[in-house]
Amino acid sequence: MIDSRRDVRAFRGDAIPDDTLLRILRAAHHAPSVGFMQPWSFIVIRDPATKQQVAASFAEENARAAQHYRGERAQLYGSLKLEGIQEAPVNICVTCDRTRGGPHVLGRNTITDTDIYSTCCAVENLWLAARAEGIGVGWVSILTIEALRRILGIPESTLPVAYLCVGYPREFFDEPELQRRGWAARLPLEDVIFNERWGQK
Amino acid sequence: MIDSRRDVRAFRGDAIPDDTLLRILRAAHHAPSVGFMQPWSFIVIRDPATKQQVAASFAEENARAAQHYRGERAQLYGSLKLEGIQEAPVNICVTCDRTRGGPHVLGRNTITDTDIYSTCCAVENLWLAARAEGIGVGWVSILTIEALRRILGIPESTLPVAYLCVGYPREFFDEPELQRRGWAARLPLEDVIFNERWGQK
Repeated sequence: MIDSRRDVRAFRGDAIPDDTLLRILRAAHHAPSVGFMQPWSFIVIRDPATKQQVAASFAEENARAAQHYRGERAQLYGSLKLEGIQEAPVNICVTCDRTRGGPHVLGRNTITDTDIYSTCCAVENLWLAARAEGIGVGWVSILTIEALRRILGIPESTLPVAYLCVGYPREFFDEPELQRRGWAARLPLEDVIFNERWGQK
Repeated sequence: MIDSRRDVRAFRGDAIPDDTLLRILRAAHHAPSVGFMQPWSFIVIRDPATKQQVAASFAEENARAAQHYRGERAQLYGSLKLEGIQEAPVNICVTCDRTRGGPHVLGRNTITDTDIYSTCCAVENLWLAARAEGIGVGWVSILTIEALRRILGIPESTLPVAYLCVGYPREFFDEPELQRRGWAARLPLEDVIFNERWGQK
């Protein structure tokens, strides 16, 4: 582990069978996409040398992020499980090729980020399909786009959207880690629903 | 319908029971989010006057979008079912409050758009939960952010991410509409999977 204060390993060591991984990626690939653009690619990473580079980038950015917190909050932050890059048997970088489908993708004329939105739908499909296989997914967001481009050779026209740690977890929790550890609580459902207009209950 | 060349109605007229809609919104609210930020809100729209305004914005932007196509492609474009705003019993605008959780959201220090990514995961959860209830969802992307802000009273700090038409469909198709109509085809799965590095098979 990068930081000894962090929790014990979250993933068991066993590999993900190829056919299982393919089922998960197929589910991701069947996400909806703007103009059926399918802008995603999935870089499947198992090489420890690559994981080590990504983990080093995480460590650097996380040290920077930790400076935002003080006192007990800093201590709690330091103890949270924020990545499983090296212990997960598989890492997957999900990317969005912003040029796929040519200059006029149906439905992508006014809100051009809909290609990225589509890619996120693929990530969520991947996540849910993995869970159905008993596989856990962690999204590591404390990384820079530049580092991912450099380490994985991703071209400028393509955005790395998600970096996922994928493997069989030691256990599935009943609630989100950050709630369990007292970092944040789930909002009441009624707080996030408006009627007819913004702000109207 | 806005355009007489378009397909017949996609939705049956029947309303969505409140408890069904709540189950779908609860599934969306249980999406993963960066730092457990839960930046989403769901504006549930049933008012025909509001729908009419959104449909008018769609019509304007769609006329502009249609100009990108010529000949047979233009004809096909004009015949596609690109919205069901007024015929769907419910429209849902899914938004992302970019300030929720304060200035330092855990995990959102390097890639600040992870709040939007989280919101898209909620959209996909909503979509799948709806499907499990026999309810169809169409994402209308031929709208402007400015029009949605104006019509729905959404503040500047909040991004309208998705505008969804939700209802019981006349039928579910076995394949995406755009594939069925010959507009685009699904990419082979192996084309979107790379091994260890971008571009490597």
